[in-house]
Amino acid sequence: MPAPPFIPFSVLLGILGILCVALTVFWNQKWRGGFAWDGSAEMFNWHPVLMVTGLVVLYGTAALVYRVPRSWEGSKLPWKMLHAALTLAAFVLAVLGLVAVFEFHNKAGIPNMYSLHSWLGLATVLLFSCQWLVGFASFLLPWAPNWLRALYKPIHVFFGSAILPLAMAASISGINEKLFLSLKNPTPYSQLPAEAWFANILGMLILVFGLLVLWALAMPAWKRPEPDSQETQQPLLQEAS
Amino acid sequence: MPAPPFIPFSVLLGILGILCVALTVFWNQKWRGGFAWDGSAEMFNWHPVLMVTGLVVLYGTAALVYRVPRSWEGSKLPWKMLHAALTLAAFVLAVLGLVAVFEFHNKAGIPNMYSLHSWLGLATVLLFSCQWLVGFASFLLPWAPNWLRALYKPIHVFFGSAILPLAMAASISGINEKLFLSLKNPTPYSQLPAEAWFANILGMLILVFGLLVLWALAMPAWKRPEPDSQETQQPLLQEAS
Repeated sequence: MPAPPFIPFSVLLGILGILCVALTVFWNQKWRGGFAWDGSAEMFNWHPVLMVTGLVVLYGTAALVYRVPRSWEGSKLPWKMLHAALTLAAFVLAVLGLVAVFEFHNKAGIPNMYSLHSWLGLATVLLFSCQWLVGFASFLLPWAPNWLRALYKPIHVFFGSAILPLAMAASISGINEKLFLSLKNPTPYSQLPAEAWFANILGMLILVFGLLVLWALAMPAWKRPEPDSQETQQPLLQEAS
Repeated sequence: MPAPPFIPFSVLLGILGILCVALTVFWNQKWRGGFAWDGSAEMFNWHPVLMVTGLVVLYGTAALVYRVPRSWEGSKLPWKMLHAALTLAAFVLAVLGLVAVFEFHNKAGIPNMYSLHSWLGLATVLLFSCQWLVGFASFLLPWAPNWLRALYKPIHVFFGSAILPLAMAASISGINEKLFLSLKNPTPYSQLPAEAWFANILGMLILVFGLLVLWALAMPAWKRPEPDSQETQQPLLQEAS
């Protein structure tokens, strides 16, 4: 597959990612009453912002770290740490995003974890947490034997590509659910008021961003050439000691 | 990545696929009033059944045709035709699935195409239709030049893997939407009545089925060894003439 130049592609992807976050903030600021951290409906509004920023945009960025051509030269360790730091930031935002929705539900007396969106979302966060922990223990800490690292690496790579579609599906179903719950009077969702157009377009943009990340991950020319075994043998503490 | 034996894996996947279809039928039969083809709410009930059967289960099966070890020997043409037939069947079911929902909406005076689920679903069907048409014209008909076929093949393969997560996201958001619209009195969705449990579990099963298909597609040991160029040069009409 003929690959476009990586850097212009990344700039486009960066603009798209910033747009996804900015539109999510704008949606909640303009139509949903803005933001607070007090258990109110305005606290809930952090939920989509933190989830889209963490599990879609930061996650997608972190997944592409090893596609940066400069990461192919010299020590892999700084790039591993960047990957771990970005995914850790994504994890922290996702946890805060869960706090935002649970606090709002608890204060408003709304049951937690009943919708398919919530089941899928929680499954995504749990899978992502396992992926982070096992990745950290295997690739950055020194005590995983090399055969285990070699065995786990393709599994880590596969789940990296598989958790992103789950996050996309969770975002789409979440935006859809929020619009059905919020848009009733005077103009229901089915009448497509301005907010519905805006949030539907946001949902489709999230989809395009995610598909472009998956496409970049699948592009053979952008994969790090692996003389192999050496870089999986470079854990954090060994180099530090 | 150590691959399990393909045949037992396929049997498991087949059982899971049949289960997805059977549970979708059961859900609509037991809780949504069964099936009809007359513009009523019972006509709508064909929508989830046809979409899950076509765009998830048949589609997933079609994507895995070239992973069957027997397809690696002898002529590729019968396998190409099986792949084209299965995806054509999926396309026909998807179109009937669209007819079911549009007819119901039109008769009940419900607007079409307002929710993010409907936007995503239509985008998925349109992408899938393009994928089928361009695939048919390139790989089965004789007039595409070989360089075009070679150029298009990785794009066809990528979109094959990318449309499935879109279908998964469309199914999840659709089930979620249907439950919010249907479960109100006496027990709303938020009280998790038996139907909500059932359909949520169905949604998660669809997800597991889709992820297993994506995993099988990504498994290096199951990819057809490509001595290449010969099989992309084997269009339908050339062999028939």
